[in-house]
Amino acid sequence: MRLSPLVALAASSLLAMPAQADEGMWTFDNFPAAKVKAAYGVTIDQAWLDKVRGAAVRLSGGCSASVVGVHGLVLTNNHCVAECAQDLSSKGNDLYIQGVVTAGPEDERKCPSMQGEILEGITDVTAQVRKAGDGLAGAALIQARTAAIGAIELQGCARSPATLRCQVVDLYHGGQYKLYRYRKYADVRLVFSPGVPTAFFGGDPDNFNFPRYALDAAFVRLYEDGKPAVTPQHLRWNPAAPKAGEAVFVAGNPGGTDRQLTVAQLERQRDRTLPLTLLRMSELRGRLIQFGTESDEHRRLAQDLLFGIENSYKVYFGRLFALNDASFLADKRAQEAALRTKAGIGDGPWKQIAGAQAKAETLYLDYSYVAGGPMGSSLFGYARALVRAAVERAKPSAQRLPGFADSQLPLLEKQILDATPVSPELEQLTLTFWLSKAREYLGSDGAGTRLLLGKDSPEALGTALSRSRLGDPAYRKQLWDGGAAAIDASDDPLIVFARRIDPEARRLQAAWIDTVTGPTVAASEQIAQARFAAFGDSLYPDATFTLRLSFGKIAGWSERGTEVAPFTTFAGLYARATGQAPFKLDPRWVAAKDRLNPNTIFNISTTNDIIGGNSGSPLINAKAEVIGAVFDGNIHSLGGNYGYDPATNRAISVSAAAVSEALRTVYGATALADELGG
Amino acid sequence: MRLSPLVALAASSLLAMPAQADEGMWTFDNFPAAKVKAAYGVTIDQAWLDKVRGAAVRLSGGCSASVVGVHGLVLTNNHCVAECAQDLSSKGNDLYIQGVVTAGPEDERKCPSMQGEILEGITDVTAQVRKAGDGLAGAALIQARTAAIGAIELQGCARSPATLRCQVVDLYHGGQYKLYRYRKYADVRLVFSPGVPTAFFGGDPDNFNFPRYALDAAFVRLYEDGKPAVTPQHLRWNPAAPKAGEAVFVAGNPGGTDRQLTVAQLERQRDRTLPLTLLRMSELRGRLIQFGTESDEHRRLAQDLLFGIENSYKVYFGRLFALNDASFLADKRAQEAALRTKAGIGDGPWKQIAGAQAKAETLYLDYSYVAGGPMGSSLFGYARALVRAAVERAKPSAQRLPGFADSQLPLLEKQILDATPVSPELEQLTLTFWLSKAREYLGSDGAGTRLLLGKDSPEALGTALSRSRLGDPAYRKQLWDGGAAAIDASDDPLIVFARRIDPEARRLQAAWIDTVTGPTVAASEQIAQARFAAFGDSLYPDATFTLRLSFGKIAGWSERGTEVAPFTTFAGLYARATGQAPFKLDPRWVAAKDRLNPNTIFNISTTNDIIGGNSGSPLINAKAEVIGAVFDGNIHSLGGNYGYDPATNRAISVSAAAVSEALRTVYGATALADELGG
Repeated sequence: MRLSPLVALAASSLLAMPAQADEGMWTFDNFPAAKVKAAYGVTIDQAWLDKVRGAAVRLSGGCSASVVGVHGLVLTNNHCVAECAQDLSSKGNDLYIQGVVTAGPEDERKCPSMQGEILEGITDVTAQVRKAGDGLAGAALIQARTAAIGAIELQGCARSPATLRCQVVDLYHGGQYKLYRYRKYADVRLVFSPGVPTAFFGGDPDNFNFPRYALDAAFVRLYEDGKPAVTPQHLRWNPAAPKAGEAVFVAGNPGGTDRQLTVAQLERQRDRTLPLTLLRMSELRGRLIQFGTESDEHRRLAQDLLFGIENSYKVYFGRLFALNDASFLADKRAQEAALRTKAGIGDGPWKQIAGAQAKAETLYLDYSYVAGGPMGSSLFGYARALVRAAVERAKPSAQRLPGFADSQLPLLEKQILDATPVSPELEQLTLTFWLSKAREYLGSDGAGTRLLLGKDSPEALGTALSRSRLGDPAYRKQLWDGGAAAIDASDDPLIVFARRIDPEARRLQAAWIDTVTGPTVAASEQIAQARFAAFGDSLYPDATFTLRLSFGKIAGWSERGTEVAPFTTFAGLYARATGQAPFKLDPRWVAAKDRLNPNTIFNISTTNDIIGGNSGSPLINAKAEVIGAVFDGNIHSLGGNYGYDPATNRAISVSAAAVSEALRTVYGATALADELGG
Repeated sequence: MRLSPLVALAASSLLAMPAQADEGMWTFDNFPAAKVKAAYGVTIDQAWLDKVRGAAVRLSGGCSASVVGVHGLVLTNNHCVAECAQDLSSKGNDLYIQGVVTAGPEDERKCPSMQGEILEGITDVTAQVRKAGDGLAGAALIQARTAAIGAIELQGCARSPATLRCQVVDLYHGGQYKLYRYRKYADVRLVFSPGVPTAFFGGDPDNFNFPRYALDAAFVRLYEDGKPAVTPQHLRWNPAAPKAGEAVFVAGNPGGTDRQLTVAQLERQRDRTLPLTLLRMSELRGRLIQFGTESDEHRRLAQDLLFGIENSYKVYFGRLFALNDASFLADKRAQEAALRTKAGIGDGPWKQIAGAQAKAETLYLDYSYVAGGPMGSSLFGYARALVRAAVERAKPSAQRLPGFADSQLPLLEKQILDATPVSPELEQLTLTFWLSKAREYLGSDGAGTRLLLGKDSPEALGTALSRSRLGDPAYRKQLWDGGAAAIDASDDPLIVFARRIDPEARRLQAAWIDTVTGPTVAASEQIAQARFAAFGDSLYPDATFTLRLSFGKIAGWSERGTEVAPFTTFAGLYARATGQAPFKLDPRWVAAKDRLNPNTIFNISTTNDIIGGNSGSPLINAKAEVIGAVFDGNIHSLGGNYGYDPATNRAISVSAAAVSEALRTVYGATALADELGG
C-alpha cells in the first residue's frame, strides 16, 4: 500500500449527484435497470432480480455468499470461513493454515455462531416507524422507535419464527425504513477451505492491492434438520474464462458507507475517531505480532484475530488519508451547501448534527471504553451479553435495550451458546490491553478508570479476568437459562466484573442515545427528505449490511499513466512466490504446478461499487451465472467509504475458473467440483 | 491524559505576537530583563546571566543540567541518566530499577556516550554564513552553507579542540546564525539515581500529568583527566521550601519548537508526519510491551527503549490533537496572512515553502524508510555511521555530508566507540519491525522494499542482521580506525547491508536536501527577515536545543473551573501508592515513610515556557539558586510546540527540598547531601 497518491480520491467525479457511471450499491427494489441497459445492453428484469436475490446469502459474521447448488452448497470467501476454521482447529491441527477438504456431508462440520440468511421479501414500514416517534426527541424518540421496530419484526416473522428472521432496515439515514424478511439457516457447515497461505497469498502486504494472486474462495453448506438444505433456487456456476469489458454484477451485503454523512460528521471521523481507532489497533497489532513470535501455538492462537485487526487497520488507514485530503472535504462542503440551498430548509438539521457531534466528542472516550469493551475478547462479549440479557429478558420486549428485542434474541442466543474455543493467553492479552488503554485515555484519576480498575493494575486485573469460566459453553448455557438469579449468584470473575460496571456502561449508553443518536436520527431524516425532494429515486442509500446489487464491467485502471490489466493468472502466482511467508506456496500448489494451466485467469478487477461486507459476494454475468467471488477492493476502494471514483475504484474477485481448476487439480476435490458443475 | 478539552490551546492568547506574559525561550544575549523587572520586580543583570550560563550544562543525550558543586557535581533528571543506568546494568543487576547510590568518586562509573557541555561564548556569524550561500539554491546552497559552517566551527575552537566544542546555531529559522562555543566534558560519571520506580512514579499514565509525585532527579559528575572537574562556577543549592508566586527561571536547552513554521508546514505535520509517526510508534510500543511480558530479562532489556517510545508517543499525540483543533489552525492562518501584509514581500516565500512540502510529500516514505532507519536499533546506527564515516573522512571536510565535518567528528567517534551493551533479541525486534513497516508503506513491489528486502522476509532478514558483531566495541574500533578498506573487507551482515543500501540512501538524502531543505531554508530566511522588520528583537527564536532562559512564577492553573495547586507533598505520594506498578513504592520509601516529613514540597508547577530538551534544567530563584529540576510539562504543554498559553501551560519540577530530604532520609546518601549543602 502506498499513501496519498493512491488513496486520494478524484473528488471532482465522485461528488456528483446523483450516481453516475458504475456507482451505486442499489437495493433490489430500486435497481436502475434502464441505466444498465443503456450502458451495457443488458436487460435486468424482475425474473433476473428475483433469481439472484433468492440465491444471495448473508452470513452473520459480516460476509456475503451465494447458493451455487441444489443441496445447499454456498460459495463465499475463505476469509469468511477463516474464523470457523480457527474454531475447528486445535493445537497441532491447524485447519486455518492447512485448509479443509471434505469428501461428503459426513465430513462437514458446523461453523460455530455462523448463520446464513436469504432475503425473501421487502416491505415498506416507513410510516409505522416514523409514527412511533412523532413529537418525540432524544432518548424518548429512540426508545419509541426501537419498540416499534421490535414489534414490526416480531409480527413480520410470526408465521415461522424458527425459520425466518425479520429486520427493519434504515435506508438513506432515516429516509426509508423497510422490513427485510430472511429465510435463516442456523446450521452452516464447512465444506472446503484452501487454507490461508493460498487464500491470502501475499498476506497483509498484498491486501487491498492488485495485481493479486489469492484463491480467496471457500464453500459452506446450509443444513436443515441435520441434512443439507434443499435449494432449488441457486445460481449456475460458470468456470469459463471471463472476458475483459463484459458486464458483471455483484449481489451482496456492503457493510456500511459514509457517503451521505454531513461534513461535521466527517470532520470528527478525521480528527478523532479514525486516529484514535487506528492508534489503538496499531498497538494491539504490535502486541499480537510479538505474541505470535513466542511459539507456534501462540502464532496459531493469534492468527485470525491478527488478520482481522490488520484488515480493519488498513481500511481505516485508507479512510483517514482520504479525509486528510483537503480538497476532498472542501468539495463535500460545497456539495452540502448546495443541498442546503436547494432544500430551502435552512441549516437547522446540519447544525443539530454538528451539535450532536460536539456531544459525542465529550462523551466519546468514556463511552468507547466503558460502554464499549475490549477488541478481540470473546469472554468479555459473553459476560456483558449474559449480564444484560438476564436483566433485559425479564422486561417486556418493547422496553428493552436495543439488541435485546424478542426478534433479536434467537441469533444472540446462538452466538452465546455455540461452542468456540477460547484461549486464556489471548484473553489475558486483549483484556489487559483494553484496561491499559482505558487508563491511558481516561486518565489514572478518571472516573472510568477508577470504575474499571479500582486499585488494580491493568496487568493484574486482565490476568484475573482471563481466568473466567465463560469459555465453557455449558457454563454459559447455565447462566443463560438461569437468568438473573444465576447471574447474581455467579462468582465468575468476569461476570462479577461485568455486573459491577454495567450500571455505568448503561448510563453512558443512555446518554449517548439521548444526546448523540437521537438528535442525529431526527436531523438526518430531515436531510434525507430534502435529498429525496432534490433527486428523487435516482439515489442509492448508504450501505447498511443489507442486500444490494451493483453493476459494472471487467476492467483494470490507469495508475499514474500505467495501465493495470484486469486479470492475473496462475503463472503470476508462481512468479511471485519467494519461499517466505506470506509469499510462500502451500506444498500442494508446489506439487501441482506442472499440472495447472498457467494461463488460467486467477483474480479479476471490475468496476463494481463495493465495500467491506461484500466479501464473498458472487460476481455474476449477464446470464445470472457465478463467474467468481468478490474478496477485496483495490487500494483506491478504501476511500470508497466516502465516494465512488469510476476511474480508479475497483472490486477484486477470484474467478470461478481458478476455483474449479484448483479443486480438481490441486485439492483432488472432485466431488465438490462435480457438484458445482460447469 | 485526556484528550481535546485538555490539549486544546487557548488560541486567542497564544498567537499574539510579540511574546506576552511568561512566554519565551530566550537566548542569553537577548533576554527581556526589563519585562521581568516590570512583571516580577527582579533584576536580571549581566552578572546574573553570566553566572547562570556558566553553570548550565547541556548533555549530549538531549537533556539539560546544572553544576551545583565545586567538584563537577551536576544535577539533572533521572530520566536523563536512565539510559546510562541501563547501560551499566546486566542480567540480575538492574540499576535502572534499583538506582545507584555511590559513596564517593571511586564508585562513580562513566556513562557511555554522554558528554557535558557548558556554553562559554556566543558570536554572531550571520553574515559569514549568508555570504557562503549567495546566489545559490537547492543542494548547492546547503552544501556551501554546510562547508562554511564546518569551517567556522573548526576555527572557532582551534585554540583547544580537545576541550572545546563549537557549533553554529540557526536561530529564527535562518534569521540569525550564531557560533556557540562550549567547554566540553567527554567523561561524565553517574553519582546518584533514585531508580525508576521512584523517579517515574506513576509511569506513563502520570507522565505529563499533574499533580505528580516523582523524584525525577539524579546527579552526575564531570571529570577531567580522570579526576572530578574543578567547577568554581556553580549554582548554590537551596533546599528551602519554595513559595507560591515567587519568580523562577529555567536555564536549559529546549529541543525544538514549531511556533514559527508556516501553515503549509503545520498542515503536513497534521495530515502526514504526525499520524504516520504515531502509528509506527504505537505498533512498536505494542511489540515492546509484549516482549517485556515474556521474561524478567526481556522486561529489563526493553524498559528504557519502551520509556523513550512512550514518552515521544505522548508528545506527538498532544501535538496531533493540538493541530486537529480547527480554530487553532485558523488563527495561525490569519496570523500568517497578517505578517504577509505587513511584510509587503508578496507570498513568494510562503508559496516556496508550500512547494517544498509537496516535494516532501512525494519523497517522504522512501526518505524516511531508506534514508532513515529503524527506531531503537543501536546496531544499525553503528553500521550506517561506520559505512558513511569511512567514505566521508577520506574527503576534505568542506565536501562531506552534514554531520561529518571535522568539527563534528569527535562526538561522533565517542558515540560509536563508547562501550554500551547491545541486546540481540531487542535488535531482532527493532530491525524486523523496521523492515516490515518499510514493506507495508513502500509496498511489496516498491523499489525501496526490493532494495531493503530482496526476496527475504522482514523476519528472516531482521534475524540475520541482528547477528552482527557490531555490539563489540573492539570491532567497531577496528572498523573506525581501518576506514574504507576495513569497511569494504567486512563480512559483518549489517555492514554488508548498510553498504549495499547506502547509495540509494544517499541519493534520497540528496534529493531531500535539494528539493525540500534548500528551498525551505531560503524562503524561511526571507520570512524571518520580514518578522524582524515587523517586531524587532521583541521575539525569541524557535527552540533548537541550545541554551535558553525562561522566566515565570510558581503557580498552578485553573482546570475547567477547578484550581490545581502548584505543589504536591510526600504525603500525596504515599496516598497515591497502590502496591502495583507503576504506582508501587520502592521498598526504601516504604521503610522511610515515618521518618520523612509528609509536608515536604515534592513537585512544583511553574509558568515557565519549556519543552522537551529542558529536562534536567535547574529551576532557579531570583538569587540564582537552584530550588529544583524541571522534568516535565503538564498536558497543556504538549501543544506548546506550536504556541504558549499563559493560562494553562506549565513546567513541572522536582524540588531541591525533596531531593535533599530523600538523599538523607531514604538513601542515606549523606556525603552527597553534604556536598550539595544548603
